[in-house]
Amino acid sequence: MNKQRIHRVIENMKKAGLTQIIVSSTASVYYLTGYWIEPHERMLALYLDVSGRSILLGNEIFGLKSMPDLPLLCHKDSDNPVQDLAKTVKPGKLGIDKFWSSKFLIDLMEIRKDIVPVQGSAPVDLARMLKDKTEIMIMRNNSRINDQVVGTVIAMLKDDVAENYLASHVNKHFLQNGADREGTQLVCFGANCADPHHSGDSTVLKAGDSVIFDIFTPINRYWCDMTRTVFYKTVTDRQRRVYDLVKLANETAISRIKPGVLLSEIDKTARDIITESGYGEYFTHRLGHGIGLECHEPPDVSFASDIPLEVGMIFSVEPGIYLPGEFGVRIEDLVMVTEDGCEVLNQYPKELQVVD
Amino acid sequence: MNKQRIHRVIENMKKAGLTQIIVSSTASVYYLTGYWIEPHERMLALYLDVSGRSILLGNEIFGLKSMPDLPLLCHKDSDNPVQDLAKTVKPGKLGIDKFWSSKFLIDLMEIRKDIVPVQGSAPVDLARMLKDKTEIMIMRNNSRINDQVVGTVIAMLKDDVAENYLASHVNKHFLQNGADREGTQLVCFGANCADPHHSGDSTVLKAGDSVIFDIFTPINRYWCDMTRTVFYKTVTDRQRRVYDLVKLANETAISRIKPGVLLSEIDKTARDIITESGYGEYFTHRLGHGIGLECHEPPDVSFASDIPLEVGMIFSVEPGIYLPGEFGVRIEDLVMVTEDGCEVLNQYPKELQVVD
Repeated sequence: MNKQRIHRVIENMKKAGLTQIIVSSTASVYYLTGYWIEPHERMLALYLDVSGRSILLGNEIFGLKSMPDLPLLCHKDSDNPVQDLAKTVKPGKLGIDKFWSSKFLIDLMEIRKDIVPVQGSAPVDLARMLKDKTEIMIMRNNSRINDQVVGTVIAMLKDDVAENYLASHVNKHFLQNGADREGTQLVCFGANCADPHHSGDSTVLKAGDSVIFDIFTPINRYWCDMTRTVFYKTVTDRQRRVYDLVKLANETAISRIKPGVLLSEIDKTARDIITESGYGEYFTHRLGHGIGLECHEPPDVSFASDIPLEVGMIFSVEPGIYLPGEFGVRIEDLVMVTEDGCEVLNQYPKELQVVD
Repeated sequence: MNKQRIHRVIENMKKAGLTQIIVSSTASVYYLTGYWIEPHERMLALYLDVSGRSILLGNEIFGLKSMPDLPLLCHKDSDNPVQDLAKTVKPGKLGIDKFWSSKFLIDLMEIRKDIVPVQGSAPVDLARMLKDKTEIMIMRNNSRINDQVVGTVIAMLKDDVAENYLASHVNKHFLQNGADREGTQLVCFGANCADPHHSGDSTVLKAGDSVIFDIFTPINRYWCDMTRTVFYKTVTDRQRRVYDLVKLANETAISRIKPGVLLSEIDKTARDIITESGYGEYFTHRLGHGIGLECHEPPDVSFASDIPLEVGMIFSVEPGIYLPGEFGVRIEDLVMVTEDGCEVLNQYPKELQVVD
């Protein structure tokens, strides 16, 4: 058990008026216990009360071991998985992790009619939002790997190479650098760049194409995520204008980051630059997302995110302009909020690059 | 909307004493509406009442379109996603799909204190368990593709080839035959075969190895899944004995399949054969699983499955013997229950094969 993290979660429980919660997501259980368990249809639950009492409940198939500070209650496939939990929880409000399967909650409510389930993810989500030293070290290192990988695959651009060929090389280089698994990398050429979620297919590269590499993977459980856009052999004035605008939006937004500023203001900074130049309708998504044990996690970086920046937040800044049928540009860095600004975790250059 | 399937679900609701249910799983919503939506953290819900009234509720990002027989209620990211659902449901018992996220259920219960959530997946699960003509046609075809692919990769066995190289070729051949996506194929050599969940790594092939190909993928949304074990260059008497035993268990279990027999008896038939020969402790998993829109779905084929076989069930029969540090053998076919027995969907031979 990570005592400092548990302590922060308990502080968050107090602020939220919660005396007991059930933590069930793979990432949150790992964050607090060090166990990485993907329970699929089986039950996993970390019970935590405001006094610091914690109990881990799971299927015997998970291979859990009791720890001195974390008692374990195991069930079998033939048991009702919530039976031990029903004996553990106290009457009254019980915070429930957001994606816990309803089937467990319904069974628990049937056995324990004296509990009142309420939303219960915030105490852990808010703790996870502010990265601690171990997490920062890992995520800094992962972004360094990401910088290397993007450089390697940009160097592989040549006539008629296919998007999915490069995507498989991104995965190969990630795996050689310790990635936990293969992913679906977004490699896009030309008009495909105008779809922000296009993932590599058999499209081949031609002179004049914009090229987007949006590459992301978990390494030691923590995600890196970056995007670079380059041009192949030639670049038009219009492509250059759009590129410069996206780069300006990325850099200006990053320059405004410091504790206390609202996340919505960071989104607005980038969006205003793009809108004032007449491309507002082509920037079709939020500016960014928190990242850590999950690729997308709190905080949200959008117009709707009225929460102030705090030291230790790590999130993406990724403005984009997508011109259907023509091309697209996105530039994404991960940033970490510091006492007096932010540290940009990605260092691969952002100057406009025309690859020959 | 598929009227026949809806009709069967409503019949199952009546038997279960349910007047209204929420269907939320991607596969079940697809089964009834033809929409394949992976909602991730967003809300997807198909409301269905016993009179046949159905309403589909989802985020506008899913790109849903209203159909004459299926009204649509869309919400935005900035809305409370359960607001429309709260206006739709009637007081009293409400069946809830098993993996629906608790966060939606909790919000719904807060707005509608007059509903009583109960387990609600069975009506659709039981309908999905009995495949209809369209499904049978697709799954028959998919197993035919699976037979081809296994033959192709068995022909690729040679000295020092790596497990993950063959696994990538399994994916390549599946994709060339229309697979929906790449998967994690189980290709195992030698002692790796003794771990029923080992997935292909850089282990290379040596003479005397057992070789397991457990290959599975969705094609047109429906999964195929088969396993063949062969030996490379030589086979010992002990390997041959184990192979013959697993083959006998597979074939005898299949020969007992017909409507009315309990699934637990089919498991027992295979298990008894292996146990009586002294290998019982090395057959470490259930005999099989239902399959369709999900790779593992009802019915369970295990000692605990006291439900009778019915025409149209499709499931796997996959006995195995796993000898730690030595080798392993598993033989898996998909079978479909027919009026007077079953149809075996996999036709790749099961005779012991020593590949040179």
